[in-house]
Formats: sequence, C-alpha cells, structure tokens
Amino acid sequence: MDLNADLGEGFGIWRLGDDEALLDLVTSANVACGFHGGDPSTMRRVCEGAARRGVAVGAQVGYRDLAGFGRRHIAYDFAELRDEVTYQLGALSAFCQLFNTRVRYLKPHGALYHAAATDESQAAAVVAAVTSHDPELPVLCMPGTTLAQLAVGAGLPVVAEAFADRGYLPNGVLVPRGTPGALITDPDEVATRAVRIATERTVVAVDGTVIPCPADSICVHGDTPGAVSATELVRATLIDAGVPLAPFA
Amino acid sequence: MDLNADLGEGFGIWRLGDDEALLDLVTSANVACGFHGGDPSTMRRVCEGAARRGVAVGAQVGYRDLAGFGRRHIAYDFAELRDEVTYQLGALSAFCQLFNTRVRYLKPHGALYHAAATDESQAAAVVAAVTSHDPELPVLCMPGTTLAQLAVGAGLPVVAEAFADRGYLPNGVLVPRGTPGALITDPDEVATRAVRIATERTVVAVDGTVIPCPADSICVHGDTPGAVSATELVRATLIDAGVPLAPFA
Amino acid sequence: MDLNADLGEGFGIWRLGDDEALLDLVTSANVACGFHGGDPSTMRRVCEGAARRGVAVGAQVGYRDLAGFGRRHIAYDFAELRDEVTYQLGALSAFCQLFNTRVRYLKPHGALYHAAATDESQAAAVVAAVTSHDPELPVLCMPGTTLAQLAVGAGLPVVAEAFADRGYLPNGVLVPRGTPGALITDPDEVATRAVRIATERTVVAVDGTVIPCPADSICVHGDTPGAVSATELVRATLIDAGVPLAPFA
Amino acid sequence: MDLNADLGEGFGIWRLGDDEALLDLVTSANVACGFHGGDPSTMRRVCEGAARRGVAVGAQVGYRDLAGFGRRHIAYDFAELRDEVTYQLGALSAFCQLFNTRVRYLKPHGALYHAAATDESQAAAVVAAVTSHDPELPVLCMPGTTLAQLAVGAGLPVVAEAFADRGYLPNGVLVPRGTPGALITDPDEVATRAVRIATERTVVAVDGTVIPCPADSICVHGDTPGAVSATELVRATLIDAGVPLAPFA
Repeated sequence: MDLNADLGEGFGIWRLGDDEALLDLVTSANVACGFHGGDPSTMRRVCEGAARRGVAVGAQVGYRDLAGFGRRHIAYDFAELRDEVTYQLGALSAFCQLFNTRVRYLKPHGALYHAAATDESQAAAVVAAVTSHDPELPVLCMPGTTLAQLAVGAGLPVVAEAFADRGYLPNGVLVPRGTPGALITDPDEVATRAVRIATERTVVAVDGTVIPCPADSICVHGDTPGAVSATELVRATLIDAGVPLAPFA
Repeated sequence: MDLNADLGEGFGIWRLGDDEALLDLVTSANVACGFHGGDPSTMRRVCEGAARRGVAVGAQVGYRDLAGFGRRHIAYDFAELRDEVTYQLGALSAFCQLFNTRVRYLKPHGALYHAAATDESQAAAVVAAVTSHDPELPVLCMPGTTLAQLAVGAGLPVVAEAFADRGYLPNGVLVPRGTPGALITDPDEVATRAVRIATERTVVAVDGTVIPCPADSICVHGDTPGAVSATELVRATLIDAGVPLAPFA
Repeated sequence: MDLNADLGEGFGIWRLGDDEALLDLVTSANVACGFHGGDPSTMRRVCEGAARRGVAVGAQVGYRDLAGFGRRHIAYDFAELRDEVTYQLGALSAFCQLFNTRVRYLKPHGALYHAAATDESQAAAVVAAVTSHDPELPVLCMPGTTLAQLAVGAGLPVVAEAFADRGYLPNGVLVPRGTPGALITDPDEVATRAVRIATERTVVAVDGTVIPCPADSICVHGDTPGAVSATELVRATLIDAGVPLAPFA
Repeated sequence: MDLNADLGEGFGIWRLGDDEALLDLVTSANVACGFHGGDPSTMRRVCEGAARRGVAVGAQVGYRDLAGFGRRHIAYDFAELRDEVTYQLGALSAFCQLFNTRVRYLKPHGALYHAAATDESQAAAVVAAVTSHDPELPVLCMPGTTLAQLAVGAGLPVVAEAFADRGYLPNGVLVPRGTPGALITDPDEVATRAVRIATERTVVAVDGTVIPCPADSICVHGDTPGAVSATELVRATLIDAGVPLAPFA
C-alpha cells in the first residue's frame, strides 16, 4: 500500500504543514508546483528530501490561484488548463532531475481535483497534458470519476486512492464536507479504516454497510493540526497489521 | 550568423510584439518563461511556431515581476534566483518537448541580464541553475561580463551577442541608455552595422573608432513600433551581403 | 444619455485600448482597479484624464485573475468577494481624491458582471461592499438582473445600461456570444441602435420585434480594433440626433 | 509610549503571527496592505479588531513582492512607487472606514523601510504619496533617516521609533543583521531596554556607551516564535515601570 500526502504547499515566507516530518512517513509526495502553492525553493527542498528517502514525487497541479489556494472552482478554457498543467509538470520535472529522479505521477489539487472528477473539459485538459508530457505517467485520483475514465481511455495508468479520514456514502462517493459523517476525526478510527482499506479493499459507509474500496494509495492530510501524529499512527498501525508500505509508482 | 529576438512576452489578454512575424525572420527565439512575461499558452504557441520553422528556442529567464516586466533590479538571494531559473528552464522544456525539440540556450532578460553582467551572486545563480539542468546548455550574453566569465569557468558554452541598434563605447561596453548615441534609430544604419558585425566582427564606437565585436549572434528588438520591418531590413541586408543566417545552437 | 467604456485595463508594460482617445468620447469611465487589469500608475493617469475632462469615474471591479483578465468564472466565497470589492473601491478612491473627484459608481467586470447577474451570493457580495463603502453609490448593470434587484433592495441607486453593439433576445436578454446575432459589427448599425435606445428606449431584437430597452447609459467597447472610430461614430450620431451626452452620475 | 507591531501579514490560507493576541498587547497596528503580504479579508479582520480595542491602524506599505515578502530591494521608479503607495493607502482606508476609523499613520515595510532610510527617490515617493493622500498623516520611521528628513521637509508629522530587540551602534544606527550584537534575544533584556527607551530616551549601544534614543514608539516583532510572550513581557514591564501605553496617533 502507498501513503500519499500533499507537500511543499508553503509560499515564500509562509509555511503550511511540516514537510520534513511527513517525508519520513509517506511513500508518495504530492508536490505543489507553484500555482496554488509552492515556490521554486520549496519544490527543490521537497524533491531533494523525497529523493533521499525513496519517496515518490508526484506533480500536485492546481489552478493559478495563490489567493484562494486553488480551492475555488475556476472556469478554465480547455487549452489554458492543459497548458498550465504542462507548465507545472515541466517545472517540477526540472527539480526532480536535479536529484536523479523524475515526476512519477500526477494528482490534481483542490478545486481542480473536484472539477476533473465530473467536468469533461477539465478532465480532458489534464489528460491531454499528461499524455503529451509522458504517456506512461500514472494519474492518482478517485476511481470512477470522469478523470479516471478519460485517463484510462487515453492509455494512462490510473492509481485509485482512498481517504481513511473521510466518510463514504453507500455508493462509494465521499460524504460532502459540511454533512454529518464527512470527516473522521478520531485518529484510532482513521488508522483502523486505513487497515481495512489496505487489507480488505473495503470501507464502512456512513450507513454501516461495508462497501468495496479498491485503492492502491491512501491519502493522508498534512496541513491540519495533529497531522503528523495522525499520520504516524496510520503508518504504525498499517505496519503492525503486516501491510508493507511502498510507493505505487 | 544568428539573429535572436525576445518573443512570447505577452501575458494573458495582453500582447507585446508580433511573435509570428518575428519567427519568420530570426534564427533564435528567446522565449519568455512566465515570470516577467509569457504564459503557458503563449509559450506553447511560440515553441510550436519555432519548431516548425527550425528556429532555436532559448529560455529567456527573468525576475518574478510581471508588474515591472522584469526590468527593475531585485536583490535576489542566490538560492532563490537559482531555483527560479531552474523552474523556468523546466517549464519551457516541457513545451519544447511537445514539439520534439528542446531548450537550446539560455538568455537572461531585462534587469537580470544587466545584474548578471556585473553581480557575482546573481551571475553565479544563473550559472548554477544552468549547470545542474544541462551542463552543455549555452549561455547567450555579452562577452566579458561576469556572467560570461562564470559560465566559461563552469564549462558552459558561451555565445557572444552584439546589438546592431545600440551604440558602443570605445571599451566595448554599450553606451548607457539616456546618453547621446545610446540608440541607433536609422534602420539603414542598423542594418549596415549588423553587416559589419557579421563580416568583420567589428563595430564603430561612438567616438568613431573601429573596435572588435566578436559576436556569434545579433540581437534585434521585437517590441518597438517598426520592429518587424527593421528586422526584415537587417535580415535582407545580411543575406544580400552573403552572410548565412542560422541558429548558433 | 451617458456613454460608458472600460478604461485603464493595461497592466505594467502591456496596454489595452486607447485610454486617452476614449476619454475624449465617453462620459463615464469604468476604471479597472488592479485585480483583472489596471495598475496603480494607470489608475492615476486615467483618473487624472477623466477629472480634467469632466468624465465620471466608476470602479470597474473584477476577480483577482490577471492571467484570465477576470473573464473566467471563479467560485468566490461571499466574504472574500465582498472584501476584494471593498479593497478595489478604496484603492480607486485614493486616486480620484488626488484629482478632487471621487468614485461615482461601480460596474462589475467580465465574469463578475455575468455572475452577479444571476448568482445571489456574488451579487450580494457586491451589494454588501458598495453599501458599506458608500450607501449612495450607483451600481451600473443590466436591468432585471439579480444584481439590480439586490441593489435596489439595499437602497442603492441602479443605473441601467444597454449595449448598442450586442443583439438582444425578445425577452430583453443579450444573445449569448457565439450565437448568430450576438454581435453587431457594422458601425452604422451600432450608431443607429444607440440613437434608438437613447431616443425611444427600445431596441430591435434578433427576431425583428421592437422591445423596451430602458437604459440610462450605453456601453461602448474600447479594446477591439476600430473601437475608437466606432465610438466616435456613436457619439457623433447621438449628438446629431439631438441627444445630449452627460454622465449619469 | 506607543507599542507598534506588524500585523495582518498572512495571505490567503497562510498565516503569519498571531494577530488577535498581538492586538491585545500593542497600541498601534502596522497593517499589511496586500502587496508584500495581507489580503482583503485579513485587512478587514485586523481593522475590525483594532477598532474594537482602540488600537491605531497604520498602513504598512510594501513592495509588490509576495514571493519575497517585500524583503528584497526592488529598484522602483519614483512614480511607480508613489502610485503603489497611494493604492495601498486607499485600500486600507476603505477597511478602516467600515469600522468608523481611519488610517492614522504610515510605516514602510521591509526592504522599502530600509531603502527609504537612505534612497532619496524612494523616500520622496513615499512622502509624495502621503502628502497628496493626507497632508497630516504621520510617518513612523527611524529618526535621522532620509525618509524622516523628507517627511519633515514636506510638513508631515514624523514619529520616531526604536527597537528594543535590536542592537545599536554608538552613532545611533542599528547593528546590521548578521553582525554580533544585532539581535537581543533575551526577553528580560529586551523588556529592560524598552523601559530605558521609554523613561530615559536612551539605549545602551554595543560598545556599552549610553546614547540618546528619542522615540515615541517601540517596535515589537510579531512573526517570530515566542513573539506573543515576549511582547507580553515588554508590555507588562513598561506598565510596571509606570509608563502609560497609548497610541501616538
């Protein structure tokens, strides 16, 4: 099983999350590429730290929206979005190359992650950028989404991710934020869910039913208070349960 | 002889210069990388147009300063500048790769061009970024500058450029802007100077003396009124004088 | 009748439209405030030129999106949008004050103009910002829109605008761009439509029916080729028809 | 005596310092205006918190450089800098006005603070912006600097500030950062120095001599670890020493 987290999301003087601590815990680092967060020196530092530890670097591409941290939907034109994804992929690649590694996958950030799950044009723009940049680059996303479907259609590897700290509806979709059951806040429960996902490929939905959860990567969140200790617990619990942790890529 | 010009310097809705017309005239395109000007879709378009015509693409890296178009000196820290150059090189590389070409050289833009000519730290930052990105990537700059010296010291190819439309002091340095003789505005004189540079590697300084001007590329300016027709005249006059035009890279 | 146009939409080195020429023709200037376009020195220059000519200055507030020129919908949170509008109103006010004038109205730009026409939250954010900044500040917009309704409800003066160069559906809504009849490109027809709006408060819809068009201001576009001569023609034709031109504000 | 600190220096999702805690301790808040840090919603929140507590709001104007947090010198043109200061003053004024207060002073931030201390053009740009915005607006800065001199010459009130946590050379200039004695890190010593400044208008220079320190405001730093408790100690020690704390403005 793979553990992924968003990293390198500071900008200039501002920090967000503890990149160094999380690099010791995850197996894949979704590195912000400067559009919603991240700056060149941060990208370099995270790529260096990831390479040193054998953590896979993924391009966490986002909207050009520092003020909104890429969390506000923007009605991008297909070509503009495609080209901004290409730009971000190239920039991050240059830092990976410095440390004899390369971008191993792509994961959209924030509002782009959500848009690409349902919006044909935005999903197609991401797929077009990936395909033309590296036709073997995996896309990390929720299974069943428009992005997953278009990526498969374009011959790209798709890696499914699951969220141990988010509630699921019986149909396999996340409980919308702001709705009861959307967030699992008890660290022990989060760790237990992670083990179930890793060992059984199932998750307990909000109505108590057990549903399939076919994931090759579990996403942990790095920018909340207690993120590091929660991730430590998930990691330790998985290892105790005999789940080997390694990058999917 | 090579003819280089700054291209792709628009941003979003705003245009600057006539990229398509200039791509028909120059042999090397200094493509803005999004920090002082340029945006992903413009970069893609210029790289495509350059690749189609056999025009060499160079990374025109600049300060992160859209509001000042990279023309204001910024007191960058060494590491920040190095990393911003790496970022820009990577981003442009991704667009070149789409059209089966690659970044063939680097030329600093505006205030960075001037700073790197004399400032050890900024010149070293540019050289460090180039060396670690591609140790065979030529740097296009004025000969004799700090940048040229450090690049040579780092084993990078240095390509000397000359300015047919700028006055020279007897010591080979450009007449500072705002000083009499700084700009040559008569298109015929500019073309004549270009031929002298190309055929004799000399230029007539402001005091009338003929001085050496060892250049492998002549820079023409694309963002002034009449830029296209002036460049057409330079190009035609060089060809008439039997000077073959081709990318240096 | 009032003639309004978008002005001051350049940014840094980049220009858009001919501000000086348009200031001689319009009676109200929608001045960009730096978020989608415009920069402090441009704002100052346009405010000075407007004050000298007795042209009313309006705040053309937009999304924080230079790369998209404020033309892409952004899913702003209510409070963020309200506060960004307040910020832009304050910044422009400071320049007006330098020339002994003040912001005389507000008009949203681009995607915000469109969003505020139908989106309750975005319209309410604009209205909240205006009300708390100056409860007597007119809002310039299409009649019948959500923005117009909420502004009226908040006690703000609403000034209706019409577009002489855009087609109308029989229900008074503009023909969507990209649809036949969306744009009127013949300058004479545009001028004729402007006179009809000014003298009869009607417009001929795409189906040939004559519909009411209760407008106190006619918007002319300043950023297209031929914009200045088209505006000259509209202005001259209105004056020939005996329509006095003056700021509504 | 007045206590001033930089506040509202977050941007979007990123925070810097504890604005709420510091608003309980200082008497003047230097509020970032969005160019080097700060965003509209943060400005609103800090202005509201300051107004509620009777803390004076000052415009902490900075270079347009989010990536460098306004700490890198930028070679601004006079007019550009003047207009950017006007813009920032206007934007902050709009938020003050919402809470029935106004901008009570201006203090330059970071590299602009340093540049304006010695650079005639940049100091003059700040003074020109202040004078034309509000000819009675105090400028908060180090005494003896170019900014202080030009402000006095323009008839502006100048308020001298001192730094309890910085070392002074015998000539009254701060010990440059990176030099021994530049920073006073012991909180008790900082508090003791603050009392000496407040009660005797003197400071002990690095060579042990006691020199004059004619200050009406003491600057405390809000963005370092332990900033809040250090400021609490300075405040408590001043009050214990019988020094009344109140805004100078």
